[in-house]
Amino acid sequence: VARPRAREAGARVIAAATTGNAGTSLACLAASVGMPCVVLVPASAPEAKLSQLLAYGAQVLAVKGNYDAAYDLCVELCRRLGWVNRNTGLNPFTREGKKTCSFEIWEQLGRQAPDRIVVPVGDGNIISGIWKGMTELRALGLVDRLPRLVCAQAASSDAVSRAVRAVRGIQASGAPPTWADVRIEPVQADTIADSLAVDRPRDGLAAVRAVIESRGEALTVTDGEIVAAVAEVATTTGLFVEPAAAVTWACLKRLARNGTLDPAERLVLILTGSGLKNVAAVRAAAPPPTVIEPTLPAALAALQGFTRSAQK
Amino acid sequence: VARPRAREAGARVIAAATTGNAGTSLACLAASVGMPCVVLVPASAPEAKLSQLLAYGAQVLAVKGNYDAAYDLCVELCRRLGWVNRNTGLNPFTREGKKTCSFEIWEQLGRQAPDRIVVPVGDGNIISGIWKGMTELRALGLVDRLPRLVCAQAASSDAVSRAVRAVRGIQASGAPPTWADVRIEPVQADTIADSLAVDRPRDGLAAVRAVIESRGEALTVTDGEIVAAVAEVATTTGLFVEPAAAVTWACLKRLARNGTLDPAERLVLILTGSGLKNVAAVRAAAPPPTVIEPTLPAALAALQGFTRSAQK
Repeated sequence: VARPRAREAGARVIAAATTGNAGTSLACLAASVGMPCVVLVPASAPEAKLSQLLAYGAQVLAVKGNYDAAYDLCVELCRRLGWVNRNTGLNPFTREGKKTCSFEIWEQLGRQAPDRIVVPVGDGNIISGIWKGMTELRALGLVDRLPRLVCAQAASSDAVSRAVRAVRGIQASGAPPTWADVRIEPVQADTIADSLAVDRPRDGLAAVRAVIESRGEALTVTDGEIVAAVAEVATTTGLFVEPAAAVTWACLKRLARNGTLDPAERLVLILTGSGLKNVAAVRAAAPPPTVIEPTLPAALAALQGFTRSAQK
Repeated sequence: VARPRAREAGARVIAAATTGNAGTSLACLAASVGMPCVVLVPASAPEAKLSQLLAYGAQVLAVKGNYDAAYDLCVELCRRLGWVNRNTGLNPFTREGKKTCSFEIWEQLGRQAPDRIVVPVGDGNIISGIWKGMTELRALGLVDRLPRLVCAQAASSDAVSRAVRAVRGIQASGAPPTWADVRIEPVQADTIADSLAVDRPRDGLAAVRAVIESRGEALTVTDGEIVAAVAEVATTTGLFVEPAAAVTWACLKRLARNGTLDPAERLVLILTGSGLKNVAAVRAAAPPPTVIEPTLPAALAALQGFTRSAQK
């Protein structure tokens, strides 16, 4: 949505700061119309995400710093050079793009809203977009009730979750929330879920509102739970997803453990990226493959434990 | 197709040698029914393919040697332990699986066969399967003519292409080909298209027959052409594919240069794997991203050449 809008506006160059996924999408679409595209990533971006950006012909700057540093630099750069900035949250058209996720869910569920949607939250743009999409469906009379939204975050990248708790605290004391007064405190994000590693969520206030207004909740999970979730999603659903996506599965397990899952409810998990985009989580979870000489005795020796259990 | 067949046969364990893609599919399907699965890969298999196998819970052996060494070892291992062997070509059900690609092409083209299909060839199992599928469609009266098949190979992994030329030589001398006499000479495969790196193609004879019987042709391309093709496919079609898949695009360009492309013909390219599975080709083609300090002057300096050309 942001890319065609940039073209309408007559922009010559479009730029964005990204941990990888949004930038790849932008680079792909920019290439399709021959628009030059600059992408700023944290220098620690996974190899696979960098490769995709380069294949699509983006001009890539690896910024020594985190996503927030790349984000702020992209703002300065676009201001100076008059480029269109596609930065998530800052560019209002990104939320318009994300809201279509709700339309897809509605369509695929037979034109109904689910009871709950578990959404991975970094900048907060996906959950704010999903909430916008659902409220628009209700305004159009296409759904009669709205789903509750579960904000799923990594433990160290939990600025939105903290703000949700703060607002709930104000509500519990009887005062109605005054959105203009809500402040989102930055955190020091450091998680294997690289796409969610955000110190200051750029669409944070709207994300908090989505959770509060939908009567949802905010959950955080540890990197250990995220790493385990990657393998669990793969073996139980066949989907190989990146750590940032597996966060929603880990939160689903939390809901189950908390006893707040209703077996009759219709719950949707958002899984946002392919596992091939960040293979570090898998390597952290699984023992490395056994390297062997190409001989039968070597293979039999390496498989001793496995064959014993498999032949049972 | 091979996996459910293994279950019908009452197998306790299924194993395969693979460069990565077939093994991932096997591991995923085996996990879905709780069947133990052993996968042998060449020790040089790309990180992403290993990660996918491990995420799906496969028992992975990294064999010091090439695909052919892993293949032969898997044969020995399955014989010794009574396991079902899914090795491509050796297991006849793999061709039954691959043939469904023809049914999909036929369906997606409005129940018609194309004029030509360009197929990446390693073991030769995909092209033999596509030929089987197309001939079955004709036997059923669902198509009235068969497409010509173009065998697309990497220059150093060209055993099938060499055999096609040898058979054409025999045909030119007036003698009809006697398939029992056709020998496929092994090569020393060494290519960036890792999924096609095969010394002895295990479904080679059927691959040669598919090309000859369809009145197709065999083309080989260099690693340089393959690397360039990855970026060309990405920027012109939006698809980010692995080197083994980009081989068909490079062959399409060969056809264009040879003047043997008919603008009116309907030609299908088979693109087999995601570019995220082997990012080495992209890194070989593109300059690495510029690493910069998170400051505006650093960004402006790094983008000097780009901004000059973009502002034109």
